[in-house]
This record gives sequence, C-alpha cells and structure tokens, in this order.
Amino acid sequence: MSLLVTGSIGIDTVETPTDKAVAVPGGSAFYFSLAAASFCKTRLIGVVGEDFPDEMRSILEDAGVDLAGLEVRKGGKTFRWHGKYHENMNERDTIDVQLNVLGEHGPPMPAAFRDSKYVFLANTDPALQLELLDQLDDPDLVVCDTMNLWIENARDNLMKVFKKVDGVVLNDSEAQMLIDEPNPVVAGQEILKLGPSFVVIKKGEHGSVVFGQDYVAPFPAFAAETVVDPTGAGDCFAGGMMGYLASQGTSDIDGLTLRRAVMYGTVVASFAIESFSVTRLQSLTLRDVETRFARVRDMLTL
Amino acid sequence: MSLLVTGSIGIDTVETPTDKAVAVPGGSAFYFSLAAASFCKTRLIGVVGEDFPDEMRSILEDAGVDLAGLEVRKGGKTFRWHGKYHENMNERDTIDVQLNVLGEHGPPMPAAFRDSKYVFLANTDPALQLELLDQLDDPDLVVCDTMNLWIENARDNLMKVFKKVDGVVLNDSEAQMLIDEPNPVVAGQEILKLGPSFVVIKKGEHGSVVFGQDYVAPFPAFAAETVVDPTGAGDCFAGGMMGYLASQGTSDIDGLTLRRAVMYGTVVASFAIESFSVTRLQSLTLRDVETRFARVRDMLTL
Repeated sequence: MSLLVTGSIGIDTVETPTDKAVAVPGGSAFYFSLAAASFCKTRLIGVVGEDFPDEMRSILEDAGVDLAGLEVRKGGKTFRWHGKYHENMNERDTIDVQLNVLGEHGPPMPAAFRDSKYVFLANTDPALQLELLDQLDDPDLVVCDTMNLWIENARDNLMKVFKKVDGVVLNDSEAQMLIDEPNPVVAGQEILKLGPSFVVIKKGEHGSVVFGQDYVAPFPAFAAETVVDPTGAGDCFAGGMMGYLASQGTSDIDGLTLRRAVMYGTVVASFAIESFSVTRLQSLTLRDVETRFARVRDMLTL
Repeated sequence: MSLLVTGSIGIDTVETPTDKAVAVPGGSAFYFSLAAASFCKTRLIGVVGEDFPDEMRSILEDAGVDLAGLEVRKGGKTFRWHGKYHENMNERDTIDVQLNVLGEHGPPMPAAFRDSKYVFLANTDPALQLELLDQLDDPDLVVCDTMNLWIENARDNLMKVFKKVDGVVLNDSEAQMLIDEPNPVVAGQEILKLGPSFVVIKKGEHGSVVFGQDYVAPFPAFAAETVVDPTGAGDCFAGGMMGYLASQGTSDIDGLTLRRAVMYGTVVASFAIESFSVTRLQSLTLRDVETRFARVRDMLTL
C-alpha cells in the first residue's frame, strides 16, 4: 500500500558531548521516509532550496522513496538546524535554526499522490495539514504529529485536524501541554475525546503509550547500549509504525496490529540512534528490523 | 516456600498536592510483606518502639505475616517519616525523619527463621545485611535493595553483599550513582559484573529493566490513571516480585520466571499507589492481581 508523508527536509548540524556531525541530512520527512522504506514504498512531499545537495537526494532515491513531491524551490534555501545534546543525551539546546523555504508556502501535491491510502502528516502548521488532507481522494488511514508551537498558536486548526485524522502521535510534554494534565494516561484519554481513533504518546527513552478505544497499552523503549545521536528518533518511530501498518494493507486496523506497529516503530528508532543522522538507516534492512523485533517480542512475552 | 524480609517498619505522614494522611503504616518491610502476602507466607524481621499501635500490628497479622521476628524494643520509639509530594507526584521532599529504633542495633533473627529459602534484604546498612545473611542456613534465593546513603558511605560492605546475593533491585538514580554512568542499560550490565546473577533497575512511573546473564528486558509501568500516594511503590514492586518467585517454589529461576515476577511486582505496586499507605493492599486479593496481570500480559503480547 502507498504511504504518503509530508514534513520537513533539512540540513542538520548535531553536537553531542563527544562528537559532532556537520551539514548532515535531517528533517522529519527525511527520517520518516527512510524509516518507512524498509516496509513499503513511500511518497514524500516536501520542499528544499537550490542548495540541497545531490548526495542527500540520492540517499532518498537509493532507499526507493518517491520524490515526485519534493519541490526544489528556485532561489530558496533549505531548512537548517543546529542542535547540541546535553551529557544525558536526552535534552538538547537549539544553537541555530533557519526556516528558509519552510517559512514560506507549502509544496504542491502531485496529482499522482492523491490516491495515497496511508498518510502521515508530520509536524507542521495545522493549516497546511488541513490543506493537504483536502487534496486526498480517499485515504484509509491518516495519522498526524504536532508540536508545542501549534498547540499554543494554532489550537483551533489543530482541533480541526484532530477531528479528521484516525490517529495522533505526539510526545509526552506536548500531550501535557495540550490537555494541561500531568498524568500522561489521563492526557491520552482526553486527547482521544478530541476525535482520533487512537493516540500514541512518545516518551523518548522511556517508551510509548498506545491509547485505543478500549485499552491503554504502555511499551518500553528498546534497551539501547549505544546512543550516538537521538535526532529524528521520534520521526523514525512514526516511520516504522506507519510503514508496518501500510505493509499490512488493511484499512481496518485492530489493536494488536497497532501495538505491533508501535513496537516496529520503537525498533526502527533504536537503530537510527546508533549513528549520526540517517547513516544507520541507509544500511538498515527489513531482516535487521525483524531480528530485533523478535528479540523484543520474546522479552515482552510473559 | 517461606519468604523472609528484613527492612523498616515505620509510621508515616504523607502529604500530596490535594490530600494528607497522618500517622499511617509505612516502612519498606511493611509494604513489602503486605505485597508478598497475596502470594505466599511471609516472615518479617524488624524493630519498632513501644509506641507502635496495635492496629498496625493487626494489619500485618490479618494478612498472615509471621511476626515472630518483629521486636518491640523496650523504651524505644518507632521510626517516623513525613514526606510531601510535588505536583507531578513523582518527586517528594522529606519534611521530617526520626530514625528512633532504626538508628540503633538491628533486631535478632528468630531461630525458626533460619531455614528461610527466599530472602529479601530491604534497604538498610550493608553491615546489617551481611550479619543477617550469616545467620541463614541455606537460602535458595537472596535479593537485596540498597540506597544512595550506603553507596556513598558503605561501598566496601555493599560490594560484599553484592557478591553474596543472587539478585539486586535498585532504582535508576542509585544505579547511576553506583556506576557513574548515565545510560541505565550500561549501568545495569556493569552491576551484574559486581556479583549478582540478575539486576532489576526500577524507573518508577517509567517501568523497570531486568538484566540477566544473557539478556536485557525493559518493561513499562502499569498505565495508572489514579495516583493517590506513590509511597512504598518500590517496596511493593519487590514484594510482588519476591512473593511470586517464592510461590513458584523453585531455586532454579529462569529468565521467563524472573520477567513474570517483575511484572507481578509492577502490578502489585500499581494497586498500592491507588490509595494512601497500605489501604489498598489490605483488601488486595490474588484474584485482583491475576486479573490485572492478565490484562498487562495481553497488551504486551505482540
């Protein structure tokens, strides 16, 4: 089944307590589509500037990502982000951010993408998410992410998005801000009432919680011995999750399938953080993913 | 199989952002033995003062806890603790602590307890833990807890304890302090090298990680909607875990049995935090525990 993602494509500089990577691939849609690529054909909608390097484009092409929706904007510059991780590798400071083409209008959707059945709206202005949704023929499953900026500044549109999507993926601090509730279990259940059929709250190194209509299922993160660069882990989680769901080819997603998808997302993210940027994702095979998934499943089987 | 626990018995005052409980049962061995009581006969070694209320003694007796090792010290006063939880219910401040009889010598072990097969050394001075170990005939499984105080001030004796026990249970900040390593997965594996066959790192609301000789298994906490009083949750976790292990009646504990035990501990702790002090534990039945365990197991089965 076709999986469509729209989100950011960027050029990152990442500093950790012991190392640094300069001008490497980044952005939510970059991470997401490579993470999903192990599972299914992925279509990308995004915008970059004329400075976007051919080598970065090749990484996506080599993974089989359909770039018909990647606009190279004339005279534009690619989104850039520079971050620095703290000693614990969980918190980070943004040293510099240049929105560039991301601060302008969104990229157009190719007509060939309108029939996409699985859709992930990565974190962006809810107005753009709504605009994109309107251009789709008849998607089977739409899931969105969001962030604090839109919760604070675009809540009305965000609520419209929540009413139109099947699922919402967001992190624990965002859930807390959205609902003003410190208990993530209560927050997740309140977000369900805003419209989606399911909610997934990401807790970083502490795992995730899946909220369905009649269950709450918490999951641990993978026990990672080596964390080189956590950038994009949440996008890889969503990419693995959506990639698995799309590969199942059913529009009727039951609880077990969703929970498996979340654990596939967890596993893909656990590979991504083992090296800077998307390096590990480039060589990741479905076999690698299945092997680690089986290990995790065995440990969780009681 | 007989399960022996030694630890503190106290009288607590607990404040939360919305409520308060004054002079209620507390202490690691109080929580532990009630948590274990659903699974097996539990023997308690502890010391209280002459002020220890009959009603508190009755709670333990009613649960079937063997109090032959509970010394009521002449002229002594019971350990008292007063704590106040922050808004997030995870952090707390100690308002007042009076060690009283806990600051003196340990209670004696009844001769009838020497044949105990399952033993939990709750957090106390490692010198006392070693003394108690020396009085046991031939235990099958010994597990200990510890805390920052002993890691800082009694490391030599603590290392002796670690060489003699089968398992160590401690929380993530303690593991980090013990090994000086921010990654809990690395820390757990380093603690294994200090002697025990297995290590369980408790992460509070974020679950736990089990380290065996050839595996690392992270688990989520129960998704608790209601957290009234988290005091003693870690002791209940250990009590449920050890109670389940003792109920299995085997000295040869494989990985699956240990992981099940950890999830039983998680489930018992999830009940304990639903009300102040040991109130929920008093009415807790094995059937309650099994029902919730089955729910958790189903959600984790992928």
